[in-house]
Amino acid sequence: LTRSVRFAARIAVDLLGGDAAPAVVVDGVLSALRTDPQLNIALVGPQTAGEALVRALSPGERERVSIVPASDVVAMGEKPVQAVRGRPQVSVRVAMESVRAGESDAVFTAGSTGAAVAAAHLVLGLLPGVVRPALAVAVPSARGPVILLDVGATPDPAARVLVSHALLGIAYARLRGIAGPRLGLLSTGHEQDKGDGLRRKTAARLARGGLRGGSYVGLVEGHHVPLGGPADVVLTDGFTGNVLLKGMEGAAVLTGGVLAGPGGALLLGVRGIVVVGHGSSGAGAVAAGIATAARAVREELLAGFERELAADPESTGQSREVLP
Amino acid sequence: LTRSVRFAARIAVDLLGGDAAPAVVVDGVLSALRTDPQLNIALVGPQTAGEALVRALSPGERERVSIVPASDVVAMGEKPVQAVRGRPQVSVRVAMESVRAGESDAVFTAGSTGAAVAAAHLVLGLLPGVVRPALAVAVPSARGPVILLDVGATPDPAARVLVSHALLGIAYARLRGIAGPRLGLLSTGHEQDKGDGLRRKTAARLARGGLRGGSYVGLVEGHHVPLGGPADVVLTDGFTGNVLLKGMEGAAVLTGGVLAGPGGALLLGVRGIVVVGHGSSGAGAVAAGIATAARAVREELLAGFERELAADPESTGQSREVLP
Repeated sequence: LTRSVRFAARIAVDLLGGDAAPAVVVDGVLSALRTDPQLNIALVGPQTAGEALVRALSPGERERVSIVPASDVVAMGEKPVQAVRGRPQVSVRVAMESVRAGESDAVFTAGSTGAAVAAAHLVLGLLPGVVRPALAVAVPSARGPVILLDVGATPDPAARVLVSHALLGIAYARLRGIAGPRLGLLSTGHEQDKGDGLRRKTAARLARGGLRGGSYVGLVEGHHVPLGGPADVVLTDGFTGNVLLKGMEGAAVLTGGVLAGPGGALLLGVRGIVVVGHGSSGAGAVAAGIATAARAVREELLAGFERELAADPESTGQSREVLP
Repeated sequence: LTRSVRFAARIAVDLLGGDAAPAVVVDGVLSALRTDPQLNIALVGPQTAGEALVRALSPGERERVSIVPASDVVAMGEKPVQAVRGRPQVSVRVAMESVRAGESDAVFTAGSTGAAVAAAHLVLGLLPGVVRPALAVAVPSARGPVILLDVGATPDPAARVLVSHALLGIAYARLRGIAGPRLGLLSTGHEQDKGDGLRRKTAARLARGGLRGGSYVGLVEGHHVPLGGPADVVLTDGFTGNVLLKGMEGAAVLTGGVLAGPGGALLLGVRGIVVVGHGSSGAGAVAAGIATAARAVREELLAGFERELAADPESTGQSREVLP
């Protein structure tokens, strides 16, 4: 492989995902292409929207863009799993298929989280030992990044699912360069037994050990996510994590600041790189999400996850060899 | 009743509640006494700590302070319900008893939420139609106050408990002067069926109607609490509400702002005025919490709740007549 091929990243972008799609997504793609000269984009969506974007490009840029036709979208209020399974033209599903076929390296979508998770699960499948996927964001706390997961992939997990997400969070932190990451379970106080039934069950399982490569530091609280301190990885269910992330972002806006944009959330546990942006993403957030996906590709994050999970005693050991 | 008697408020303050008790609580009481000349305080805690405080007062101030001895506290990691039931000297329980005996009008504690809720439930009892208490805060959003409940009294509610909390939240909003309050159920998106099983069950019950005096506006998201907009009252379980509140506060600190201090959380659903402050409250937060309690007493909030809940078709109708 030449150096330039190694550093190129091919991102399949869901043109139909997001509250202001496709217009905002198109603007985000333009911005991303101009910022990153080694970026290639597969525009997954209606031919007309793709062609309009291509016309806005210089001849050199056009070589870096292709159009993958897809016309369907999961509507609000639809059940995502059924919609994605039943309708092969759903754009986020087509985007995942582009990755499975080896034509793209990663997916970015600002569409429904439920649809993205369902499509990734259906088309790409799960990594060994993973029960359900988890969405992770890196919150830039005052004391370094705090990885918060799950922020919405699995709203109603059982304790064993949370424990498998703990392993994903530890692996992700290590792959981001955090040595021996400390994992905390989000609850309503740090004293033992604080919280609800799910927390008590999960804490008991985590306390038994098995987080190879990282350590369990017990319960942490909501403010420990933006302020950092006790944990590098904060584990919670997808319902609470989603509410917390949006609440923190809103509070930051209210008090005149900005919680430095995490550039979308990374979907952990699937056999591919998938970045999910806010439905309300502007063009800047779309570009940041595409950049997150490209960085994950260049850092070979997927191979890293396969390595980390294969090394884990709690994984099922079904993983294939990644490197010779 | 003379005007001065009518506007006096007698607050029982838990000297043993809070991470830095009693020192910080003592400082908060001093500040509150000096700010509010119609305030009377019952210091509930060890005689020595109470006497040290009294010595710091002028002779005129001393007349407004009494000491109610109590020596016990619920330790971290103890089960609050058992501890409060089994040990009559627990300070927060003694404070509640001062209200039940008519010697105080309200309680302020910065101690364990679980202990405060258990003591209030045991000693004061519940208002008619209430299944479990809920802690409420008023978040000062850009578009007016948003009442968030529950922030920690009942971490694991069933759907019917959440519906009863909806009635408490509507009543509280009305008593704070919000006419026809709009109630939203906190979830991960505004589309129907978003969220987890508890949300789907609760949304179905709320959609059936019955929120007399207010209306149900459907699902709202985390950022709608700090930013306001769709709802005046945001309903959630005590686990999620606690995490969200602390996360918002932390994010506000991180971005250099302050989420204007809510002055503690009001415990709704019990037969008495109880304000619970953060365990990490400083003297200013203690004074603000005492002021919240005094304001609730002067606004006759408890009688207001009894009136509101008696008027509600979902209440059990066991309420006594409040006003002639």
